Amino acid sequence: MAGRTARRRVLRITLPDEAAQPAAVAARADVLAAEEPLGIRVNGTALTMTMRTPGDDLELAAGFLVSEAVIRSPADIAEIKLCDGTSCGHAGHDDLGNIAEVTLAAGVEVAPGARRNFMTTSACGVCGKASIADLCVRPHAPLAGDPARFAPAMLAALPDQLRDAQRVFSRTGGLHAAGLFTAAGELIAAREDVGRHNAVDKVVGWALLEDRLPLAGCALLVSGRASFELAQKAILAGIPLLAAVSAPSSLAVDLAEEAGLTLVGFLRGPSMNVYTGADRLSA
Amino acid sequence: MAGRTARRRVLRITLPDEAAQPAAVAARADVLAAEEPLGIRVNGTALTMTMRTPGDDLELAAGFLVSEAVIRSPADIAEIKLCDGTSCGHAGHDDLGNIAEVTLAAGVEVAPGARRNFMTTSACGVCGKASIADLCVRPHAPLAGDPARFAPAMLAALPDQLRDAQRVFSRTGGLHAAGLFTAAGELIAAREDVGRHNAVDKVVGWALLEDRLPLAGCALLVSGRASFELAQKAILAGIPLLAAVSAPSSLAVDLAEEAGLTLVGFLRGPSMNVYTGADRLSA
Repeated sequence: MAGRTARRRVLRITLPDEAAQPAAVAARADVLAAEEPLGIRVNGTALTMTMRTPGDDLELAAGFLVSEAVIRSPADIAEIKLCDGTSCGHAGHDDLGNIAEVTLAAGVEVAPGARRNFMTTSACGVCGKASIADLCVRPHAPLAGDPARFAPAMLAALPDQLRDAQRVFSRTGGLHAAGLFTAAGELIAAREDVGRHNAVDKVVGWALLEDRLPLAGCALLVSGRASFELAQKAILAGIPLLAAVSAPSSLAVDLAEEAGLTLVGFLRGPSMNVYTGADRLSA
Repeated sequence: MAGRTARRRVLRITLPDEAAQPAAVAARADVLAAEEPLGIRVNGTALTMTMRTPGDDLELAAGFLVSEAVIRSPADIAEIKLCDGTSCGHAGHDDLGNIAEVTLAAGVEVAPGARRNFMTTSACGVCGKASIADLCVRPHAPLAGDPARFAPAMLAALPDQLRDAQRVFSRTGGLHAAGLFTAAGELIAAREDVGRHNAVDKVVGWALLEDRLPLAGCALLVSGRASFELAQKAILAGIPLLAAVSAPSSLAVDLAEEAGLTLVGFLRGPSMNVYTGADRLSA
């Protein structure tokens, strides 16, 4: 399997500054976040392809299937394995394009009306308009009943914890991270990826394979913005609180409100914005 | 059509600091970047759905089709219009889910072997492994022959120009931006979106509709990282230089090298990293 980072040659240019330091040009090797395609096949059929940072690939595939509401427990998977061109005995390719092969347990199926196909199944066949209800995959357990409480001071400490746990970011500057925490602020799992959604899928897939779903009482922190897609993933995994270092989108807030997800944005330094579910924040 | 921003109620929490300022909790209205689904239909068939910031939707649809190598000039489009549930006469939906309807000119087709379907067309049908060549869409004109030269001092000034041009970001903190510049550093077009790839598609679509493709001699600046997908979009639009404020991925560098694209990363303050095509940087 390919590594999480790759070295490439780079020319570092620094312009002259006001203190009349001369311009500098230096050639060096730079460590970059690796980005490669991962195909996800389910029962022999290609379901999707994602550009991801290699590593934790089975977790990524499993978490993706949780987020699509295809599976919800390890028992829903009969077999999950990686075909990297070596293990499957097909040499002669270059080393791009790993494939995660998932065989579902008997009776578990990819629903034909899955979210990503909403364009063809929405209420109005003529104009294709969808409502937020069409976009959402229903969670298996309602979040509204999760009694967990989270202290603001605990939340404020999470970004530093996540940064400390990031192994690759500090070297490449190019990775998003997702961290799963207990309500007391203890880090349970952290994953990195060039794609924020992949980092979350890796965390959720790890939890599925450890038979920890739903993640009641947990908080999920993401390194950048909180989009609709990330809110959806948190809800499907049964996580009652999603926090983001940057801004949420309007649709993320709307979905969080509807699903009973506590959504925190701009979690930086000593302050934060609570968009929904403020009743879960303890005084 | 929905707006680019949306207001939502937020609880702003500030923890007590070391100077013993008391904790503060304030309710207020926050301006967020709007995020809503846009469906893109081509010749009556749903091609894709993207979560985007409303606005410049026809440019987004047109740019997406350029990036997929479906079209390359305005003449390839017979008609392009937006169906927002009002214009198409289908009331009774909520206001989510606009659709861009594109009718291609006679003889222009969506190739069955388009990039996003590489999983089913890759060389090895058993393990599905793809090579970088399978992932890439060929540009219509080679970039290697573009004689444009770019001064490092000009490049260093671009991020501030792009930030100045961002209308929504300063209010929401939640948007990516893409800016198109001349080789002399003059801003030609800037677009924003919750998705970096959408911001680039909007810029490229604007250029297509203005009949400016290929964008020879231009520089494209993106606000975050440079991924494989963004390098691919720059190449398809004929742009010889892609600059990013943050890190590139390994695959973006590999693709840029192969296609003759000059790739600049970490363009911040007085310095930058040149990963490929350094011969286009003038002294």
